Amino acid sequence: MSDTYVPPKVWAQDGENGGTWAKLNRPVAGATFERDLPRGEHPLQLYSLATPNGQKVAIMLEELLALGEQGAEYDAHLINIGEGDQFSSGFVGVNPNSKIPALLDYSSADSVRVFESGAILLYLSEKFQHFLPQDVAARTEALNWLFWLQGAAPYLGGGFGHFYAYAPEPFEYPINRFTMETKRQLDLLNQRLQSNEFLGGKDYSIADIATWPWYGNLVLGELYDAAEFLDVDSYTHVQRWAKAVLNRPAVQRGRIVNRTWGEAWEQLPERHSAADIDAVLGKK
Amino acid sequence: MSDTYVPPKVWAQDGENGGTWAKLNRPVAGATFERDLPRGEHPLQLYSLATPNGQKVAIMLEELLALGEQGAEYDAHLINIGEGDQFSSGFVGVNPNSKIPALLDYSSADSVRVFESGAILLYLSEKFQHFLPQDVAARTEALNWLFWLQGAAPYLGGGFGHFYAYAPEPFEYPINRFTMETKRQLDLLNQRLQSNEFLGGKDYSIADIATWPWYGNLVLGELYDAAEFLDVDSYTHVQRWAKAVLNRPAVQRGRIVNRTWGEAWEQLPERHSAADIDAVLGKK
Repeated sequence: MSDTYVPPKVWAQDGENGGTWAKLNRPVAGATFERDLPRGEHPLQLYSLATPNGQKVAIMLEELLALGEQGAEYDAHLINIGEGDQFSSGFVGVNPNSKIPALLDYSSADSVRVFESGAILLYLSEKFQHFLPQDVAARTEALNWLFWLQGAAPYLGGGFGHFYAYAPEPFEYPINRFTMETKRQLDLLNQRLQSNEFLGGKDYSIADIATWPWYGNLVLGELYDAAEFLDVDSYTHVQRWAKAVLNRPAVQRGRIVNRTWGEAWEQLPERHSAADIDAVLGKK
Repeated sequence: MSDTYVPPKVWAQDGENGGTWAKLNRPVAGATFERDLPRGEHPLQLYSLATPNGQKVAIMLEELLALGEQGAEYDAHLINIGEGDQFSSGFVGVNPNSKIPALLDYSSADSVRVFESGAILLYLSEKFQHFLPQDVAARTEALNWLFWLQGAAPYLGGGFGHFYAYAPEPFEYPINRFTMETKRQLDLLNQRLQSNEFLGGKDYSIADIATWPWYGNLVLGELYDAAEFLDVDSYTHVQRWAKAVLNRPAVQRGRIVNRTWGEAWEQLPERHSAADIDAVLGKK
């Protein structure tokens, strides 16, 4: 392949491209069919799937509910990206980028749309005043790491994960490129978590809630079947943090919301009340 | 290559990997040598380079100065990433992730470190109360797009740009993968900017300041020599917006800060006062 390929002067789509998730990829944006989104009874309507980006928001909402914030009650509707739900007119109206998760907040007169998982975490932390320190320096440090995650995870998900787990064949150069970067990121987190209990410092924050579903799941062996390849056990401080975060009840609840795979006690396609989660976790 | 490669059970670094910028890539984090950072006379100390992520912050600071915010006066020190300046102990102390830009704010008793370009834009917008609407829905929409940019640009820079312009040879599969995504992003922006003057809506915001250095430069032919390949002229609304943003005096000033390439009137390795910029732009 690499010996003979010369890029054309002007790129044009030539069949599908992308391995396992090929049908999700298009060179254009926008809706492909008309369908409204469902709406439940709570003020917050989440449209999501339990990929790492989806887990972030469900975990955040469960953390807020654990603190007694009843305004954080929510309906979580399944967006099956393998079936193209993200290209419906309704979903595109909430997130024109056609990526989960997306949130509608009906608690004020005009509903507010929030998309991008990092933006949703910031929105909820400001709305309820939790999981982001008030002190400027501490708040800034937590936001440094929140933004770090949002820019780093594409190298893990769209880079390493794609080429290691989903591409149609194992391409050596991109696997090496994205593995090196993933290991650098893990080492960075390991150094940070050696001297700090949480990413932002002494307090659990939206930086941890954003990062755990990616790098926590990764070192716990839950992503891409890559634990041995990446030698995840060597990142001992990330391991310590990943297990501590997983032990939080809200994390155990949030991680299964909109999940359609795994063990029976991990599968909850839709969530409309706390009892929905209780029932599934009860199967463990 | 692709016919014979089988990933090892445990990945190990095997020589350099990465084409033009190979020496920047490592599987570990942290400082590689001891050196303090320089410090100028202003409260804000920027350590940067005029790549798109660096341009974001210099443009923001110039926009604030254009509004008369004297507290936004800054020294911009050059971090030459090709020479490994980002691995000094001083720089790593400000940004442990070893990426430009990084900011130190000495205006309060305890200095505050800010890293990740998106975090710096948010920090400055909140500090000075500009370029982010007060209204919740409008503020949220601007932040949706700010976070969109931070998660999208890695596909443009670390994906498309790397494989199209910097990789040691043109690998067909990754070029197709990241070109398709880049064109989808351009189409998304084009649709958004067809019905909105700016990304967040009617007001110029940090979403535009974050996005212009990447997608504005791209459609103006300033990134990766890829204008024809991506057919950037077809994104007419992105073109309209890119030119409008470029016409802002603060953008013309900020884009040359910490720049060491291009025309003579574009090169300003260090910026310590407005006069430094005036002198360079005067060569045009």
